[in-house]
Amino acid sequence: MKLLNYRSPADDAVRLGISTEAGVIDVAAAAAAANLQATVGADTDGCIAAGSRGLAELTALCEWASRQGEPGSWLLPEAGLRLAPCVLRPGKLLCVGLNYRKHAEETGASIPAYPVLFSKFGNALAAHGDEIALPAASREVDYEAELAIVIGRAARDVPVAEALDHVYGYCCANDLSARDLQLRTSQWLLGKSCDGFAPLGPWLVTADEVGDPNRLAIGCTVNGVARQRSDTSDMIFRCDEIVSYVSRHMTLLPGDVILTGTPEGVVLGYPESERVYLRRGDIAEVEIAGLGRLRNRFV
Amino acid sequence: MKLLNYRSPADDAVRLGISTEAGVIDVAAAAAAANLQATVGADTDGCIAAGSRGLAELTALCEWASRQGEPGSWLLPEAGLRLAPCVLRPGKLLCVGLNYRKHAEETGASIPAYPVLFSKFGNALAAHGDEIALPAASREVDYEAELAIVIGRAARDVPVAEALDHVYGYCCANDLSARDLQLRTSQWLLGKSCDGFAPLGPWLVTADEVGDPNRLAIGCTVNGVARQRSDTSDMIFRCDEIVSYVSRHMTLLPGDVILTGTPEGVVLGYPESERVYLRRGDIAEVEIAGLGRLRNRFV
Repeated sequence: MKLLNYRSPADDAVRLGISTEAGVIDVAAAAAAANLQATVGADTDGCIAAGSRGLAELTALCEWASRQGEPGSWLLPEAGLRLAPCVLRPGKLLCVGLNYRKHAEETGASIPAYPVLFSKFGNALAAHGDEIALPAASREVDYEAELAIVIGRAARDVPVAEALDHVYGYCCANDLSARDLQLRTSQWLLGKSCDGFAPLGPWLVTADEVGDPNRLAIGCTVNGVARQRSDTSDMIFRCDEIVSYVSRHMTLLPGDVILTGTPEGVVLGYPESERVYLRRGDIAEVEIAGLGRLRNRFV
Repeated sequence: MKLLNYRSPADDAVRLGISTEAGVIDVAAAAAAANLQATVGADTDGCIAAGSRGLAELTALCEWASRQGEPGSWLLPEAGLRLAPCVLRPGKLLCVGLNYRKHAEETGASIPAYPVLFSKFGNALAAHGDEIALPAASREVDYEAELAIVIGRAARDVPVAEALDHVYGYCCANDLSARDLQLRTSQWLLGKSCDGFAPLGPWLVTADEVGDPNRLAIGCTVNGVARQRSDTSDMIFRCDEIVSYVSRHMTLLPGDVILTGTPEGVVLGYPESERVYLRRGDIAEVEIAGLGRLRNRFV
């Protein structure tokens, strides 16, 4: 299932939707029309909290919707919607650095023996379609296409073989990075957590629909030109290994988000004379097989 | 004012208290007895959100309490209370590294030209009096006495001269650090954000009562033996400079917490042969002038 948060044109409030081929099912409106239960709440955070019970409700709703010959006002064209981030209040926004072999090589780093973990804060969240302000403090903002893991069940000291059972779903992320700020000190946080530097979306796709997260085509374009083109199979630490490793050091909770690293092709990977960082008006698009395309314009 | 969160012995729910020389005023109970308004909510997060209106209410309550000859059940002995962290749901737990001259020197680092920023997650929060589990994954857990800043008003691009106007208050923090995990990769997060690695408290002391945060005695003892003894005037970047600097790169919001770095005397600062890291049964106490003493036992 492809879950999304969108903003009601009437009052800007966040509403929960399910993206389908026919359009976006507004969950609250459809549940009312179908006289079905929808206790999942008003957004994807509510779905995550409701776990398998919530998924069963949403599945029933999708089945009801597919049986309706004449769709009602509960079905909306996706193109017209203004989205919110596909996870609204993650307790953690954790990131793995240098996790693709070719990206580690292009930056001149050695292949890490352990996952390199850093973080972003909630101020960095942004939605598919949002315009993101290039910060005045930086002249070197870079894109990073990343697969994001969204935790569904608390994970503490979880073995690798069970780690993916704790995942609710996946989404596209752009781990935007102000390289000058990131590398100003030894710790990367400053350049990673400017406002709007963690767009997530368009959808939160449930794990059952994604299948093996360690074999997904992943790429990034800027103004339509391919810049990154890879596959999550190039990751040094796979999704199950990352979740297990983190859970051995800190408790993961439902709604926590883990960005799993970016493949080669970022601006920083080019020879210094050829580096063209993101500029006003540029459009970056992150695409991952089955997870849609996350599009943002820089202003 | 010295605000605290404590757990009701009846149902473990968090209640808001004010620490006074006579004892702890239970805000909800005292407001009911005094027939005064207390719209600040059930904990310090509510106080922060209520801003100056909330502080006015709490001041009126303290004045009422000081006029009562015979205290009622709204006044509790502080020694018997089980506290919760003095900020419950910080949106950010931001830390400044290497921010005391002598600490930077003892670790062999050069004096940083910019604040070195890193972070912890909410799973690291702990309260004064909590027992903190030494993680199985580490053998090198170190204490770090730190002054924590708690943001009261949103701060974005704030000049140094106005930065402290955005501070709600201050508290003691222990920036616990698993050195082996911290230094396993280039990024410190893993060794900084184990469960319970950010005890905060005992009180959140409002800014008006603290005065100049850049001139406070700060220290740490382990099992009663002094290990750190310094003054916040040894900080390389002062509190106002830190808030301003961070606000130029990311929006700070009410309830965000900034740990401002630790003075010399941590275990890592000793010659390698003399390093004795925290062991089961050890008790670490962080004390800052006017902010009380934050005590935790390791298990």
